[in-house]
Amino acid sequence: MTAYPYPMLDRPGMIWTKQTDKRADLKVHEWIETLGDETPDWSSIDIAILGVPLSKSSISTSAASENPDAMRKVWKSFSTYNLDEGIDLAQLKAVDLGDVRQHVIDIAYTHQQISEVMTAMRKHHPNTLPVAMGGDHSITAMLVKGWRKAHPEETVGILQLDTHFDLRDLSELGPANGTPIRNLIESRTIEGKHVHNIGLHGFFNAKELKDYADEVGLHYTTMKQARKKGMAAVVTSALAHLSGQVDTIYLTVDMDVLDITQNPAAPAATPGGMYTEELFEAVQLAGEHPKVKAMDIVCLDPRKDVGDMAVKSAVHVMLSFLTGYCKR
Amino acid sequence: MTAYPYPMLDRPGMIWTKQTDKRADLKVHEWIETLGDETPDWSSIDIAILGVPLSKSSISTSAASENPDAMRKVWKSFSTYNLDEGIDLAQLKAVDLGDVRQHVIDIAYTHQQISEVMTAMRKHHPNTLPVAMGGDHSITAMLVKGWRKAHPEETVGILQLDTHFDLRDLSELGPANGTPIRNLIESRTIEGKHVHNIGLHGFFNAKELKDYADEVGLHYTTMKQARKKGMAAVVTSALAHLSGQVDTIYLTVDMDVLDITQNPAAPAATPGGMYTEELFEAVQLAGEHPKVKAMDIVCLDPRKDVGDMAVKSAVHVMLSFLTGYCKR
Amino acid sequence: MTAYPYPMLDRPGMIWTKQTDKRADLKVHEWIETLGDETPDWSSIDIAILGVPLSKSSISTSAASENPDAMRKVWKSFSTYNLDEGIDLAQLKAVDLGDVRQHVIDIAYTHQQISEVMTAMRKHHPNTLPVAMGGDHSITAMLVKGWRKAHPEETVGILQLDTHFDLRDLSELGPANGTPIRNLIESRTIEGKHVHNIGLHGFFNAKELKDYADEVGLHYTTMKQARKKGMAAVVTSALAHLSGQVDTIYLTVDMDVLDITQNPAAPAATPGGMYTEELFEAVQLAGEHPKVKAMDIVCLDPRKDVGDMAVKSAVHVMLSFLTGYCKR
Amino acid sequence: MTAYPYPMLDRPGMIWTKQTDKRADLKVHEWIETLGDETPDWSSIDIAILGVPLSKSSISTSAASENPDAMRKVWKSFSTYNLDEGIDLAQLKAVDLGDVRQHVIDIAYTHQQISEVMTAMRKHHPNTLPVAMGGDHSITAMLVKGWRKAHPEETVGILQLDTHFDLRDLSELGPANGTPIRNLIESRTIEGKHVHNIGLHGFFNAKELKDYADEVGLHYTTMKQARKKGMAAVVTSALAHLSGQVDTIYLTVDMDVLDITQNPAAPAATPGGMYTEELFEAVQLAGEHPKVKAMDIVCLDPRKDVGDMAVKSAVHVMLSFLTGYCKR
Amino acid sequence: MTAYPYPMLDRPGMIWTKQTDKRADLKVHEWIETLGDETPDWSSIDIAILGVPLSKSSISTSAASENPDAMRKVWKSFSTYNLDEGIDLAQLKAVDLGDVRQHVIDIAYTHQQISEVMTAMRKHHPNTLPVAMGGDHSITAMLVKGWRKAHPEETVGILQLDTHFDLRDLSELGPANGTPIRNLIESRTIEGKHVHNIGLHGFFNAKELKDYADEVGLHYTTMKQARKKGMAAVVTSALAHLSGQVDTIYLTVDMDVLDITQNPAAPAATPGGMYTEELFEAVQLAGEHPKVKAMDIVCLDPRKDVGDMAVKSAVHVMLSFLTGYCKR
Amino acid sequence: MTAYPYPMLDRPGMIWTKQTDKRADLKVHEWIETLGDETPDWSSIDIAILGVPLSKSSISTSAASENPDAMRKVWKSFSTYNLDEGIDLAQLKAVDLGDVRQHVIDIAYTHQQISEVMTAMRKHHPNTLPVAMGGDHSITAMLVKGWRKAHPEETVGILQLDTHFDLRDLSELGPANGTPIRNLIESRTIEGKHVHNIGLHGFFNAKELKDYADEVGLHYTTMKQARKKGMAAVVTSALAHLSGQVDTIYLTVDMDVLDITQNPAAPAATPGGMYTEELFEAVQLAGEHPKVKAMDIVCLDPRKDVGDMAVKSAVHVMLSFLTGYCKR
Repeated sequence: MTAYPYPMLDRPGMIWTKQTDKRADLKVHEWIETLGDETPDWSSIDIAILGVPLSKSSISTSAASENPDAMRKVWKSFSTYNLDEGIDLAQLKAVDLGDVRQHVIDIAYTHQQISEVMTAMRKHHPNTLPVAMGGDHSITAMLVKGWRKAHPEETVGILQLDTHFDLRDLSELGPANGTPIRNLIESRTIEGKHVHNIGLHGFFNAKELKDYADEVGLHYTTMKQARKKGMAAVVTSALAHLSGQVDTIYLTVDMDVLDITQNPAAPAATPGGMYTEELFEAVQLAGEHPKVKAMDIVCLDPRKDVGDMAVKSAVHVMLSFLTGYCKR
Repeated sequence: MTAYPYPMLDRPGMIWTKQTDKRADLKVHEWIETLGDETPDWSSIDIAILGVPLSKSSISTSAASENPDAMRKVWKSFSTYNLDEGIDLAQLKAVDLGDVRQHVIDIAYTHQQISEVMTAMRKHHPNTLPVAMGGDHSITAMLVKGWRKAHPEETVGILQLDTHFDLRDLSELGPANGTPIRNLIESRTIEGKHVHNIGLHGFFNAKELKDYADEVGLHYTTMKQARKKGMAAVVTSALAHLSGQVDTIYLTVDMDVLDITQNPAAPAATPGGMYTEELFEAVQLAGEHPKVKAMDIVCLDPRKDVGDMAVKSAVHVMLSFLTGYCKR
Repeated sequence: MTAYPYPMLDRPGMIWTKQTDKRADLKVHEWIETLGDETPDWSSIDIAILGVPLSKSSISTSAASENPDAMRKVWKSFSTYNLDEGIDLAQLKAVDLGDVRQHVIDIAYTHQQISEVMTAMRKHHPNTLPVAMGGDHSITAMLVKGWRKAHPEETVGILQLDTHFDLRDLSELGPANGTPIRNLIESRTIEGKHVHNIGLHGFFNAKELKDYADEVGLHYTTMKQARKKGMAAVVTSALAHLSGQVDTIYLTVDMDVLDITQNPAAPAATPGGMYTEELFEAVQLAGEHPKVKAMDIVCLDPRKDVGDMAVKSAVHVMLSFLTGYCKR
Repeated sequence: MTAYPYPMLDRPGMIWTKQTDKRADLKVHEWIETLGDETPDWSSIDIAILGVPLSKSSISTSAASENPDAMRKVWKSFSTYNLDEGIDLAQLKAVDLGDVRQHVIDIAYTHQQISEVMTAMRKHHPNTLPVAMGGDHSITAMLVKGWRKAHPEETVGILQLDTHFDLRDLSELGPANGTPIRNLIESRTIEGKHVHNIGLHGFFNAKELKDYADEVGLHYTTMKQARKKGMAAVVTSALAHLSGQVDTIYLTVDMDVLDITQNPAAPAATPGGMYTEELFEAVQLAGEHPKVKAMDIVCLDPRKDVGDMAVKSAVHVMLSFLTGYCKR
Repeated sequence: MTAYPYPMLDRPGMIWTKQTDKRADLKVHEWIETLGDETPDWSSIDIAILGVPLSKSSISTSAASENPDAMRKVWKSFSTYNLDEGIDLAQLKAVDLGDVRQHVIDIAYTHQQISEVMTAMRKHHPNTLPVAMGGDHSITAMLVKGWRKAHPEETVGILQLDTHFDLRDLSELGPANGTPIRNLIESRTIEGKHVHNIGLHGFFNAKELKDYADEVGLHYTTMKQARKKGMAAVVTSALAHLSGQVDTIYLTVDMDVLDITQNPAAPAATPGGMYTEELFEAVQLAGEHPKVKAMDIVCLDPRKDVGDMAVKSAVHVMLSFLTGYCKR
Repeated sequence: MTAYPYPMLDRPGMIWTKQTDKRADLKVHEWIETLGDETPDWSSIDIAILGVPLSKSSISTSAASENPDAMRKVWKSFSTYNLDEGIDLAQLKAVDLGDVRQHVIDIAYTHQQISEVMTAMRKHHPNTLPVAMGGDHSITAMLVKGWRKAHPEETVGILQLDTHFDLRDLSELGPANGTPIRNLIESRTIEGKHVHNIGLHGFFNAKELKDYADEVGLHYTTMKQARKKGMAAVVTSALAHLSGQVDTIYLTVDMDVLDITQNPAAPAATPGGMYTEELFEAVQLAGEHPKVKAMDIVCLDPRKDVGDMAVKSAVHVMLSFLTGYCKR
């Protein structure tokens, strides 16, 4: 192999994965690997990141399909070193597997593919923790179903950070972004009592949804309650409860849980929501818990973002979760 | 009456007031009624909402005239059910009366019309609580004058949430948006000692205005003081004081009381202001008080808004106030 | 019926359809009627406007679903009187039928509904010219199929103003917005030789699509050719040719035919395109031709618009077409 | 006088009027003088520029009040040398008189002041050509009335470049921005037959306005007619006609005459309008005509501008007019 | 001196420094003086404000060069009276010296000029406190070097509010905005142990920078630590420590210390940062300390701002600091 | 080599260079190759594309440094097939060499690197035509100097499409973006009489620059002259003239030659400029000429772009030029 004859040039191929020799000042895009055809040593991979660019299943018009690439673009400005915790994420081996291919008009087919990716990941490298970048919230139902297909014997619980219950009527909407939790309950993939939803608030859930939640024994903590008790206490308590009930806890972060003043980019952004500071604390705690074995980040429309604040927050959510993971 | 021959169409007339059969999942625009020529049973109406699209009386250029329609548009994304409080606003009968017609160049004439609307509302349905969507703050002087004309015997007090005193010199500015409180005091519509202003801060009021406030005995709590004492304590105390002094408390919310980072859409947005969380708490407490009999929301320019965050906050202010009202 | 007690108010219901007594200065939203349950005298209706808010079938992410309401909102600033031609559109009876209801995740079902609306319109009031406001270009295939179902004996031709052939591979994309013309040809709804496409340009069509077009005998005129010959000459010639071959000419206007400097709001906006001036001339000529019996306007994403320039242009396209219709 | 001790600093006072020694590369803000209390030699002033920041008299909400300062800001990027014509505007002595002070709520009073400024200008320095930067179109009626008050014996004609007739009903709107020409005619300040309006187009004027125009003998050329005949021919012909009838021609440029794709910043921007290239040619020709003795530029809202394109075009209009003036 | 003949006009020269007779309602631009050639009585000047419009030395593309003028523009909406503290800044004599002239391509030359301005200021009026408006953070190194050149005998310490250490490798980047503190340490202008950095957070500093900080004894408090201890306590403690070690404390505020949700306009805006409320408190405390003798505000790109929220916050930082100064 | 185990995923590495098997529908990013360490067969490369992300040398603040990546991003939406000409660019072998590495503060060093890249390209593969994506106009001087260094015997001429002469004073500005042509002339790299500038217009060049141009015999055609004569005629004539005088013609396209209404993204966008349609024609003609052996596209700031219209136009310029190249 001969040298590239232009020492003064940065090649285009280096833009996404500019691996430098200097270990110091490692940026996130230099740390997260991408893979070629050569099958890697899957067993050594800690974290597998997956893009799920589906937002046609959203009730309101959404470009959340553009979120995976938006996150990849802005994570180039993050280092791997967490100064607050003195932890370097570079100790983890992380790969970016790429994006689930989308069918232009057959949403059911795409949903099927999403489910199969999760099943395949569990088969190929069961010790790897998957992190999915949505896409809208409909993908959570597919990913959890894929997990259960790979682990039919397991009991799975959900820690959900969300403005909404996502318990709307399946017969009306189908597997859209308003129904994933109900979908999982009605399909007996999970049980209602194994769901903890934190962050619900305001005037954004119909009374019938609360009634349904009560009926199936779903646990929820409104934003006002969470702020009064303290986010750490609420999350710790939810994890402790789930831990006693289930084999695997799946963390799903609907970015619309954030207050609209801190996240204008959620398709259904609302006042009265969570602050990023609280969200980062919540996901770091979830990351620390050994039973949290998969996560997703959904419902973020980069076209509505202002100065990348929401996409950067989504990356910070992922990295805060992984900081927790390092502390396990 | 025969059926519309297109069962697969949503008609344009349904866009503003899409009344569905399903009581569950009632949205705000489906709950708030609009009226036709048939005189309704006014006595049963709890809340009358009124648009006052006047902002030509603003010191700085403002499109607050577009706020009433902006609020009507975004409230379609709010449910009537308040999950935090377990209260459904649908128990109230609310109507949207429409907008005060605007003269293109004769502001004094429009001011007169605004005043007369309030007088007429008190006459036609005295048990209905009026909620006015401004427009700029000049309308408050007109609405309170209209109230006093209908109730000449009453003593009226003001609970004002505002960055500014609104006590500027009438002889210089006339009844503009910098003078409504002084206008009310100088016209002897109210007394200075019956005004409580909460949320003043920073470098946005001249010293002479503070001197005038002290002179007329006006009560005020700066933002720093309010945050130190707690918003609930400050508001409760102001209401208690006013309650002992006046027959009617009028609540006026100048949306520029909010911090510029949470409300970029106020014509005079400032750093150092209130957070939405604090504002929602303040107005809900005011809504609970039986002597608060009218309210307005002013000085919000939707053209400066970012992702509808400020207009959604204004709707949340109105709904939080009505949540308090339900708790009376 | 008693009078509304507030003479100084404009009621909210007047916002979309503010019918005034003064015939002079009639605005478009005051002219286009909306219908209630009472079946109108359909035979007297000249123009039926239909919203088709579907853009989930788009290859690129698109909020063209919001275009029908965006057009309804901006047409309030248009008068019915065309000063250039001295023609008042108010001589036509036009109704806005509303929007085809959308299924959140079943695009095939929505497509079926679109097709059925057209068939129903032909049955209920066959003398009315339908104008569809998309939505994306996939709807054209559905609307023309609906027409043919109502008129199985007719030969239908297409006058297409478009940057693209829309002849992409159905087996890859399905009935998406890149395939409607191929869909119509392969389903034998129309013949390739009965299509005239005007405005193709630049680097936005693969060579294989041109080869397919040549194979099926489709007629096309590139933007450069059209500008050289003159838009009027090209359109007149295409209409004359089609007129000799088919019973009905369907006009489809893909707004991405416009140059990106005049329409930033097309999901696939391109340099090198048509100017609005040329487009208005083309559609007015089409409106004059007696065999043009239906039209649609598609692929406009109001979220990408700048100062409403593209949505206003879309309304101008519709009104220019109707000006031509008045001249028949 | 001692020297400023910081040779490496540009002082703030130099920002608006950075007079350099080097005559070469003179920028417009270095050429246009501002005045202090010392009365200058008014007789030597060729051009007096005046800001009229009034837009409360607009039918639609407008921040055209911010246009004078916006023009002052962007003209700093223009040189005085016109390369196309080989003419240097620096040969003219031009002053910027400042802005008419605005009353916050008394529009009639402000209108009166605008009129008086023009009368005063004619008295103090009758050989100076006034250029007014609006503000909205209502100011034209005031400026022309002020002119006539100074010159009661003169016959004044109007060359109007506009999308609209501005002949709406005074009894309904008062002296707003939709009525200035009718105001001048009904007040007998000018005669209808002494008005030439060029650039009317599309669906933006009611038929009754055209009827009124015909009744009073007003001359108008639609945009389509003007483009067909050529802008130069149409303007030259209008000037020639007016020249034979009146003593003074007043040029009023409503920036909404421009096509919305070239000027998104007009409060009532429309498709189908004039191109900047045509407008620059028109005003340069007007500038050449010795009877054109005053001009204004109105109805430009800088808050709606995109990349300063409209404000820069407004400055180019002024400079093109002055280029014509140099050629007299 | 005769009067200006147009009493109804505001002259352009009044736009930046509109001095009114009425002392009441003094705005910041009316209070801060600008200077002419006449050497003022420098000894009486308390505060000298200096623009340093250099951002070519930024690692990421930045228009922080436009910040000085942006601050000058928005401070016109601030009064001099601080209502929270009951302090009127007008008691201070403040001047705006202007901007350091920039060389288009020779950054080293511009850096030299910045350093010399500080040295000159110390010589001409040593009792005046300089406030520099950047520009990017590279200027801090130059200003402190200029200070040391004027006061070679002094020990200088730094109170830095920043997301970053600014300790990156000089041999790689040169005196860019990522290296000023290292520059000062390596040039022995200051000592590492005389630096207190408050506000560092998240994933925005490489581990090697923390190691270097530890090596040179630099003090730092992360954002999480600062919030836990309370901003007032942390700042007070840092000032107390520095006060015992150094003669002069230089305060440098990198506006990117703010959370991205409150400041989208920093070239490197990040989640997890400081709130404006905390920043205002910190700088006011610094202003109170008698050893704080100079300050700068850097790294704010007005082109990325939203509704001027960041630029207004920067002005509020300056005024809060001066409020503290008044309390000395 | 084993297969990637996820057939349903698109890998991140495919995002920039998604090479598909299907030759039909080849997109530009799939056609332009990027290179690894393996030295390719340079002799077979027709076109080498080079990013030059330097804009610190701009007089006004500019993010033109982001243009190379912006062009790479949007060219993914262009096919290789030019429908207007029936030419497929895929017949050319094109590579993207990457970006010239930038020094953060040493502009002179970066300039040197730019020059050396060109010299190296001429040495490594002299039959390849270089296309440089700026960056600002200062790079043209460096690239042409690099060319002359490789070919000291050659006479080089310039075909410049520009709003400005770029002949400003080197002693004042240095090798900034206002001086490249003067730089080349004064350094005797080229002769003034071998420059043809087309597109100059309006008030954006000082008279002294025109005088200098005349003095050195530089040829120029203003925009008005070019439009009158026809762009094709003007360009053809300039190429013919140069062809008789020089060995190599270098084409430089300053994107600010475009009218501001079609290109809001030039740092110095102006009214009165060229239309994209004219620019595409001009560069295609230049591409056809065998003596045009290198080109650049400069002065485009993607942060100021609207809907990517300017960046897409820049890509269209490059592809139009290459279309001409195919026709040689």
